[in-house]
Amino acid sequence: MKELRIGILGATGAVGQEMLRVLEEYGIPVSELRPLASARSAGGTVCFRDREIKIQEAAEDSFKGLDYVLGAVKNGMSRAFAPAIVESGAVYIDNSSAFRLDPDVPLVVPEINGEDAFTNKGIIANPNCSSTITLMAVAGLAKLSPIKSMVACTYQAVSGAGQKGFDELEGQMRAVLAGEKTESSVFPTQIAMNVIPFIGEELENLYTDEEMKMQNEGRRILHLPALKVSCTCVRVPVMRSHSISVTVRTERKISVEEARDAVRAYPGCRLVEDCQGRNYPTPLDTSNQDLVWVGRIREDLTDERGLTLWCCGDQIRKGAASNAVQILRLMAERG
Amino acid sequence: MKELRIGILGATGAVGQEMLRVLEEYGIPVSELRPLASARSAGGTVCFRDREIKIQEAAEDSFKGLDYVLGAVKNGMSRAFAPAIVESGAVYIDNSSAFRLDPDVPLVVPEINGEDAFTNKGIIANPNCSSTITLMAVAGLAKLSPIKSMVACTYQAVSGAGQKGFDELEGQMRAVLAGEKTESSVFPTQIAMNVIPFIGEELENLYTDEEMKMQNEGRRILHLPALKVSCTCVRVPVMRSHSISVTVRTERKISVEEARDAVRAYPGCRLVEDCQGRNYPTPLDTSNQDLVWVGRIREDLTDERGLTLWCCGDQIRKGAASNAVQILRLMAERG
Repeated sequence: MKELRIGILGATGAVGQEMLRVLEEYGIPVSELRPLASARSAGGTVCFRDREIKIQEAAEDSFKGLDYVLGAVKNGMSRAFAPAIVESGAVYIDNSSAFRLDPDVPLVVPEINGEDAFTNKGIIANPNCSSTITLMAVAGLAKLSPIKSMVACTYQAVSGAGQKGFDELEGQMRAVLAGEKTESSVFPTQIAMNVIPFIGEELENLYTDEEMKMQNEGRRILHLPALKVSCTCVRVPVMRSHSISVTVRTERKISVEEARDAVRAYPGCRLVEDCQGRNYPTPLDTSNQDLVWVGRIREDLTDERGLTLWCCGDQIRKGAASNAVQILRLMAERG
Repeated sequence: MKELRIGILGATGAVGQEMLRVLEEYGIPVSELRPLASARSAGGTVCFRDREIKIQEAAEDSFKGLDYVLGAVKNGMSRAFAPAIVESGAVYIDNSSAFRLDPDVPLVVPEINGEDAFTNKGIIANPNCSSTITLMAVAGLAKLSPIKSMVACTYQAVSGAGQKGFDELEGQMRAVLAGEKTESSVFPTQIAMNVIPFIGEELENLYTDEEMKMQNEGRRILHLPALKVSCTCVRVPVMRSHSISVTVRTERKISVEEARDAVRAYPGCRLVEDCQGRNYPTPLDTSNQDLVWVGRIREDLTDERGLTLWCCGDQIRKGAASNAVQILRLMAERG
C-alpha cells in the first residue's frame, strides 16, 4: 500500500479519536495526517504515532492534496464540506447519515458489500452503528437464504452520544449513589439505573429515524430491497458496546446448526461458545475490539423460518471508526 | 369484607416485605397477620400497621386458622408446605413457579382472568413478573382479536434476584466508579454498566426456563392454548421495574388507534401520552406503583397484522406482591 495522506474531519470527538487509534493499530501507511475540526476545537492538538499534530479549522480549502477524508461530524457539517472534499479529489468516507440513502453514494460494510465501495463517485457512507453490528451478525445467514424480515430490539450504549454521553452516565451514577438528584441534558431523562426506549426523532409512522435506519440501510447493504425491519431502539446504561436481540425470517428454513456454522465462518464475527463459561456475549466483553460477537442462536418459536439471536459489538469501533478505516484500507489496497 | 387471618410464607424477602406494604395500602381488613419464614429468619420481626410482629419458623402446623397464605418463597419450599396449607383450609396464593402449569391450579392476573381464581382447589398461582407485565399490556388487544404470537425482548431489573440483586448492582457501581474490580455472585457476570442476555436455566430448545414462561403462562392466562412466544430475557442495571418490547400478531389487523383506545380503557394499564414531555415510560417512572405503563404503540413493519409496543411495570408490585394481594382481595370480596 502506498503512503496515504489522510484527513480526519471531526478529529476531536469520540469517533474521530478512535479513527486515529485504528489507523495506528491497523498499520495504515500515512505520510500526512491532517486533523480538521470546527473553529471551537481548532488550535488544539491530537496525538498520532507519538506526535502531537495541530488541529486545523475545517474550511473549503482544507482538503487539498489528501487521498482520503474520514468524516466524524454531524450531518450538517458533513453536507457542508462534502462538495469541497470531492472537488479536492479525495475520497470522503463519511460516518454521518447525510448520504447513506443517496443512490449515488455506496453504503458499505466491507465484509458484506465491500465491492460496492468501488462504485463511489467521491463519497462512501459508513452505516449506522446498530445497523452495522446487527447486519454483521445476520450476514452469514443471508448468504444461506435471503432475509425477508427482522424484528430487532437494541440495547444501545451511551457512547452513541459521544463523550458527553459517557460523562452524563458517570455523573448520574455518582449522584444516584450519593442519594442526590440527577440532571439530564444529553438524554431525555435519567439514564443511570434506567433504560430509555426512544433514540432519535419520531417519524410519521411513529418509529424514530434511528429505528428506521436498520431497514433503510439493511436493504442497501444486504442488497435486499424488499427487506422489512421492525426495530425498537433502547438506550441502556452501558458505556461502549451496543447489543441487539434480533429475530430473522429467511426464505427457507435455516437450522440452528447451519446458522452457527455460518456465523462461525463469517469474517469479522465471533460465535460465542465458551466465554468464561457463558455461551453468550455481553457488551463489556466486546468493548475495545472490532469483532461482532454472536450467541444464543435458537429457533424462532413463532415462525418456522425464523431464528433469533443476540449480538454485541463496540459501536465506536466496528459501529463507526473501525468500519470507516476498513473501507479506507479496502480502497487503498486496490490502489 | 370480613376480617381476614393472613399468613405470609417468606415474609422477610423483597416480595414478602412488599406484600405487607400492599396489604396495608389496600386497606385489607386483617385480624391476624402471621409472618412465617425459614429457620434462618425466624425470631426476627416484621412491621405491619405500626406493630412489630414476630416471625415464626414455618412448619407443617403453622397454617391453622388462616384464611389465606401469601407465598413468597422458592419452588422447593413452596412445594414442601403447599399440602399443609391446603390441609389447613387456607387458600394458598403462591408466587413461586412450582404450580403455575398445574392444570388443577389456576394461574391468575385478576384484570385478565380473575374468574379462574374461583376454580381453585386450595392453591392459586401468581404468574412470572415479566409475563404479568407483558400480558397486562397486550390483554386489551387480545379482547379485540385473539393473539397468535408474540416476540418479546425484556429489560429486567435486578430486583428479580431480590435484595441481594440490589446489593450486587450497587456494590458493583461503587467499584466501577472507584476504578476497582467488581465481583459477581448473584449474576453470572458484572451487571453494572452491562446487560446480561441470560436469565434462568437453559432448556433443550436453547431458550431458558424464564423465557418459556411467557408462552407457557400466557397460554393459560389469556386462554389461548396455541399462543406462540419467542422471548429473550435480558438483565439490565435497573433497580426495580421491568420493561418489555413486544411485537404482537393478532388474527385480524388492529389499528394503532384501536390499540391505544384498548390500552387506555384497560384496568390496571396506563397509556403514556405525555409523561414529562415523553410519550413512553421508563422503568424509573413506574417503580413503587401498580399500573403497567404502555407507550410507543406502532405498526409492526414486518407483518400487517402486527403491532409493536413498549411497557414497564414494577416487578415487585404488579409483577409479584400486588398481583398476589389483588387475587386475595378478589377472593375475599366475594366471601
